[in-house]
Amino acid sequence: MQNVQDYISKNKQRFLDELIQLLRIPSVSADSAFSQDVIDTSEAVKTALENAGCDAVEICETDGYPIVYGEKIIDPNLPTVLVYGHYDVQPPDPMDLWNSPPFEPIIKKTETHPEGAIYARGACDDKGQMYMHVKALEFMVKTNQLPCNVKFMIEGEEEVGSNNLAVFVANNHEKLANDIILISDTGMIANDVPSITTGLRGLSYVEVEVTGPNRDLHSGLYGGAVANPINALTKMIASLHDENNHITISGFYDKVENLSLEERAEMAKAPFSLENYQKALDIKSVDGEAGYSTNERNSIRPTLDVNGIWGGYTGEGAKTVIASKAYAKISMRLVPNQDWQEITQLFKTHFESIAPKGVTVKVKPHHGGQGYVTPIDTIGYQAASKAYETTFGKKPIPQRSGGSIPIVSLFEKELNSKTILMGFGLDSDAIHSPNEHFGVWNYLKGIETIPYFYHHFTEMNK
Amino acid sequence: MQNVQDYISKNKQRFLDELIQLLRIPSVSADSAFSQDVIDTSEAVKTALENAGCDAVEICETDGYPIVYGEKIIDPNLPTVLVYGHYDVQPPDPMDLWNSPPFEPIIKKTETHPEGAIYARGACDDKGQMYMHVKALEFMVKTNQLPCNVKFMIEGEEEVGSNNLAVFVANNHEKLANDIILISDTGMIANDVPSITTGLRGLSYVEVEVTGPNRDLHSGLYGGAVANPINALTKMIASLHDENNHITISGFYDKVENLSLEERAEMAKAPFSLENYQKALDIKSVDGEAGYSTNERNSIRPTLDVNGIWGGYTGEGAKTVIASKAYAKISMRLVPNQDWQEITQLFKTHFESIAPKGVTVKVKPHHGGQGYVTPIDTIGYQAASKAYETTFGKKPIPQRSGGSIPIVSLFEKELNSKTILMGFGLDSDAIHSPNEHFGVWNYLKGIETIPYFYHHFTEMNK
Repeated sequence: MQNVQDYISKNKQRFLDELIQLLRIPSVSADSAFSQDVIDTSEAVKTALENAGCDAVEICETDGYPIVYGEKIIDPNLPTVLVYGHYDVQPPDPMDLWNSPPFEPIIKKTETHPEGAIYARGACDDKGQMYMHVKALEFMVKTNQLPCNVKFMIEGEEEVGSNNLAVFVANNHEKLANDIILISDTGMIANDVPSITTGLRGLSYVEVEVTGPNRDLHSGLYGGAVANPINALTKMIASLHDENNHITISGFYDKVENLSLEERAEMAKAPFSLENYQKALDIKSVDGEAGYSTNERNSIRPTLDVNGIWGGYTGEGAKTVIASKAYAKISMRLVPNQDWQEITQLFKTHFESIAPKGVTVKVKPHHGGQGYVTPIDTIGYQAASKAYETTFGKKPIPQRSGGSIPIVSLFEKELNSKTILMGFGLDSDAIHSPNEHFGVWNYLKGIETIPYFYHHFTEMNK
Repeated sequence: MQNVQDYISKNKQRFLDELIQLLRIPSVSADSAFSQDVIDTSEAVKTALENAGCDAVEICETDGYPIVYGEKIIDPNLPTVLVYGHYDVQPPDPMDLWNSPPFEPIIKKTETHPEGAIYARGACDDKGQMYMHVKALEFMVKTNQLPCNVKFMIEGEEEVGSNNLAVFVANNHEKLANDIILISDTGMIANDVPSITTGLRGLSYVEVEVTGPNRDLHSGLYGGAVANPINALTKMIASLHDENNHITISGFYDKVENLSLEERAEMAKAPFSLENYQKALDIKSVDGEAGYSTNERNSIRPTLDVNGIWGGYTGEGAKTVIASKAYAKISMRLVPNQDWQEITQLFKTHFESIAPKGVTVKVKPHHGGQGYVTPIDTIGYQAASKAYETTFGKKPIPQRSGGSIPIVSLFEKELNSKTILMGFGLDSDAIHSPNEHFGVWNYLKGIETIPYFYHHFTEMNK
């Protein structure tokens, strides 16, 4: 690959400035208060793709936020890479834990990122990683080194379930036809330990509502005589795990793929320090399903977590009240073969069945997606592996991730093509958390590595 | 008693207007945002006492909100009644459940209150019931029928634990010296079933904080591998009750007074319809400690309720996060002989001991108070009973309340006098809830009944 490093060092400042501009727009898809900002971000992405050399860039309207599509077709006989990313971001709260405003990006040096990291909501997930592909395309186009066709599909609803993307993909098989899908929305083990994500967990996200009396009650006059919806909710949630932290929903584990001891031994080779892990999170001990290691618990095993809970008086001071209602947001991470819709139904049936007397329960399915696995013997994986080897100087480790990108399995089903998850972020980048950031080195390394993937993938397809 | 009914009917509109003015001031003591309003309310109470004929009315500063004191001493040899009440109110939220703004009082007719009820936060608890005593004094003074001495002590921190009142009482034994204490801060069974509260439950109110990782985490990357503070909190709270709804804190029941079957049989005579009770709350079934009736569960038995819980993402949409912290406000209602400070310590020790690995727990005691019982063979109770008999045409039923007025036991200890709890509100008045209200009939009936108590109490002391 001709002078990619030169090109990057010449344009480094501009690459950073452009990303920072994009990060200034608070494109929070989960909160309708930000809807105009989400729309504005789609326009900014359109312009960025055009400037990078895409033809026929268009804003595709959906029932929700638009999808930005662009392509550069140089020869129908050459392979086609479809790049997917998202321009929406997670809500920034809790705001008070941010050291700098989430939508006023700043670059700070850290121990992990001696060349500096960009601090902003979306810096890593996924504006920063998505933009690496835009800048990699710019390099290949401007230096006439684009070896194959490329299509971009950048959506604005990934953080809220990608419901409209599913419809768009189903209705545009031809437009989106490709030989391989490229996504950078995951992480790697460390800057000196490159890895490629070969597995993702599925997801089922639900909201539950427990209703007791028809109004808030005085806890003195009614306490002990009427079921308290908050106490009831805690009992119900607590019962979802047994003493071994196995999930108690009947049928939940029926389709879980059990890895062989060999596979687990292979996984266990990935460098990992429990001590550093606990130190980084400031916890005295990890906790999880009995019989599995930390890396297995968050990758090859399904889990159930409460993501939010609320009810009663949560303000300053004291209020002696029995709330009429209590709520929780609960998500389950699923492994390949578990069907998210089936699991959602199992949860609903189970949760409604364990409601204590005196309360009624509603379960509202939110969104979800299937798990996914990429075999490492495919051309796509091999091309990616070579690209990393070239720019990192060592072979990347195939790694299962605990996260979910629901649309990956959808792509396979609808477009019949595999996805390569080229993530350049680190677990310590605090995505979905206050002070999310993305290493400047990682950002530039991504821009450097991606063109090599195009090169090797095209060569290997000849 | 000379023409009390005439006086009331002549001044009815003014009595209502004056109370409505007082209810317009949002004196929410639990929320510092309202501090100026609480102060303003104390001034309004001072003026009201002066207009009613009190001498030497003063605003007594404390480390918190002031106590309004006033007295009318007509003859040191006559008995002295000390009236206690509070001018602060509960927070109004959840605001969206109010049918009219909580601090814009309106009068509406209801099935229970055909003569209309005043809807406003504090209408019943306690501005309305406190103001009955002010207007009763006005009647006795203006018609020269005050038969004994009277002292008023109206505080502004009852809804947040009355901590500074305790100090004030301890430092003013002489000023507050009295023969009987009169409080209207409880309810009665029904307008045609008058009752006098002879027992109150104690209270221990705590706030708990569960901390897991030092920051919010992505539930995909960390889910299942790290203890989730919300899941941990639900497990801990759920474990506080066993399958019979007995509280599992060791030592919790050690000092609980067990009533004889005779006493329980006597209590059971109070008219009660479980069907109407469930209908009023729109619940299919009541729930509580095994082996006790609904009326026993909320009066002679101690209880534990979560009054508020929060943690993680509670906004619109979905956020796949594992929160760093989860919180709950928990209160325990205690019965006579249970010491609230001892119970608070038992809770703290127990709760900290059941923290699952991977989380740390903090228990912050909030406030509390002891339970209380008034024997029905005292002059005070007998005088009150006669007063009700005169104005209601029937003997009141002695009744244990599930509520707590922590300072009542404090008064007995510090001032060595008994308290008569003359409540004119109804359980259905929704105190501490949205749409709190107080019947116009009840308000006026209170003003009519109170002077008879002064009369009979003075007579019986001769």
